[in-house]
Amino acid sequence: MGEFDLIARYFQRPTSRAVLGIGDDCALLQPATGMQLAISSDMLVEGRHFFADVDPSTLGHKALAVNLSDLAACGAQPLAFTLALALPRADEAWLAAFSRGLFALADEHGCELVGGDTTQGPLNICITVFGEVPHGQALLRSGARAGDDVYVSGTLGDARLALEALRGNITLPPGWMAAARIRLEQPSPRVALGMALRGVASAAIDISDGLIGDLGHILRAAQVGARIDTAIAVDLLAGDVDGRVAQGVFHHEARLACVLAGGDDYELAFTAPVSARAAVEAAALEARTPVTCIGNIESAPGLRLMDAAGQRVSGNFASFDHFA
Amino acid sequence: MGEFDLIARYFQRPTSRAVLGIGDDCALLQPATGMQLAISSDMLVEGRHFFADVDPSTLGHKALAVNLSDLAACGAQPLAFTLALALPRADEAWLAAFSRGLFALADEHGCELVGGDTTQGPLNICITVFGEVPHGQALLRSGARAGDDVYVSGTLGDARLALEALRGNITLPPGWMAAARIRLEQPSPRVALGMALRGVASAAIDISDGLIGDLGHILRAAQVGARIDTAIAVDLLAGDVDGRVAQGVFHHEARLACVLAGGDDYELAFTAPVSARAAVEAAALEARTPVTCIGNIESAPGLRLMDAAGQRVSGNFASFDHFA
Repeated sequence: MGEFDLIARYFQRPTSRAVLGIGDDCALLQPATGMQLAISSDMLVEGRHFFADVDPSTLGHKALAVNLSDLAACGAQPLAFTLALALPRADEAWLAAFSRGLFALADEHGCELVGGDTTQGPLNICITVFGEVPHGQALLRSGARAGDDVYVSGTLGDARLALEALRGNITLPPGWMAAARIRLEQPSPRVALGMALRGVASAAIDISDGLIGDLGHILRAAQVGARIDTAIAVDLLAGDVDGRVAQGVFHHEARLACVLAGGDDYELAFTAPVSARAAVEAAALEARTPVTCIGNIESAPGLRLMDAAGQRVSGNFASFDHFA
Repeated sequence: MGEFDLIARYFQRPTSRAVLGIGDDCALLQPATGMQLAISSDMLVEGRHFFADVDPSTLGHKALAVNLSDLAACGAQPLAFTLALALPRADEAWLAAFSRGLFALADEHGCELVGGDTTQGPLNICITVFGEVPHGQALLRSGARAGDDVYVSGTLGDARLALEALRGNITLPPGWMAAARIRLEQPSPRVALGMALRGVASAAIDISDGLIGDLGHILRAAQVGARIDTAIAVDLLAGDVDGRVAQGVFHHEARLACVLAGGDDYELAFTAPVSARAAVEAAALEARTPVTCIGNIESAPGLRLMDAAGQRVSGNFASFDHFA
């Protein structure tokens, strides 16, 4: 199977929103009047971002999901994406499953594949995604102000537990493992929440490298600090049933480490003024995505982790850095 | 050096045309009113698209050049690009040289780096480029009509000769090798010509996989055929001085094979109605890029290669396919 057959068979589909899709030197997009184009690009490498034996359909899902998560963090509506793919060989079963997982998520978000590249090489997946956001309404990292509440969406840390379980370092109860593995391999980008938070959140970021690391970007961008209530945060681990199983399986510090620095969560961390609390609740309802207030922004730089007694929590919760 | 230091040191620069560049979850572009956004993505893999010991500054140049060449083929003006980079390790000398070559070409075309990704992995460079083209004026592959002239820009085949020389298969005279190596490693995307051909060319494509293969895309897109005068085409090999050295070094068939199917040329192949001959000449002058008429479009499908005596040339000039 040649390069062009491969594209035609597994990736070329009619486009409805793009002016021109796969098949020419360029794709053509026509953003609606008054819209800005939000762009993000992520590269996934075997052994670094996924195991060699991962189900290719979940890999197709995840490769797009991590990009959609960046659009979500900006409050952008997904529009289209390009896919560049290096493959050791043209494996038809792999391609069929990969493209099935990819397009299932793409269709869910009305996001069209409009172009890309295929080549032979060590497995590498690079997706660049395009979304629309009304002029001036993109959520940025830089808008946090002292006094703002700090929120996170959904749950945190379970993807890291699934990763450690797959590495053989821990064992999770079966029901929990199944759910945690979905969090790791098929994360749900919080696109609806990001769009609902336009004009409500003062700053936002998606949590891909761990809460502490990614929240740190928000703090540095605005030169502010934050106080985080770890007694609330620790319960963000989904666990089996409302975290009750989690409490029985792992001690407090292990659960907290997963929540604060697990990585691969693809939830949103965001800030909003206290006056917007009702609006945040309404946005969460509209997006059918739970959000939890875990602390607040302070003018003094730095991140302060507090326990239930109001004491500083010590401990080194390092973030994930690809070159550290 | 961590991932964020690496980005800050080698890749983060102020943007002037993009609304938002590197440093947030997404970049933001605001296409001008009436403009469509042209998008292309190319992935370069070590051992497939470049040698492991290639000068990293020429690699930076080429990684962007092959993408700008796609914009050129659509007649789009470069605006911005994203860079996703998998690196075996954070080698500062390599990064400094790579980014220098990359930004030198980017600056030449007013094309800003607005975002991307870095990760550890087998060396892989994925650039996605964005350009603007007035609504409805993009050059497409599909517009060729019977009777149109067929043109190519610049010269063809020398990049392939440089590749064969670097592989040790042939020896080129030193002056020719130096020039041919620039064609292979630092191609000049024909951006100005593409823009000048808006409203003039009926179809266009960039020649990356060889003239025959890429011209074939134009023919299939319009369900037409072409007659190519190989006596003219063979002289498109640049050689040392007007191809005179080329004639002495390689026999006719070898030169023709390089011109027709060499690959890595990054010239434009385009068609235009006979009535537009003066306009094509004017576009070439405006873009300071020579163009040569090498044949014409015919209604009967297929590509017919003719010699000086008007006889069909036989021979299998295969195109480059990454999975053939």
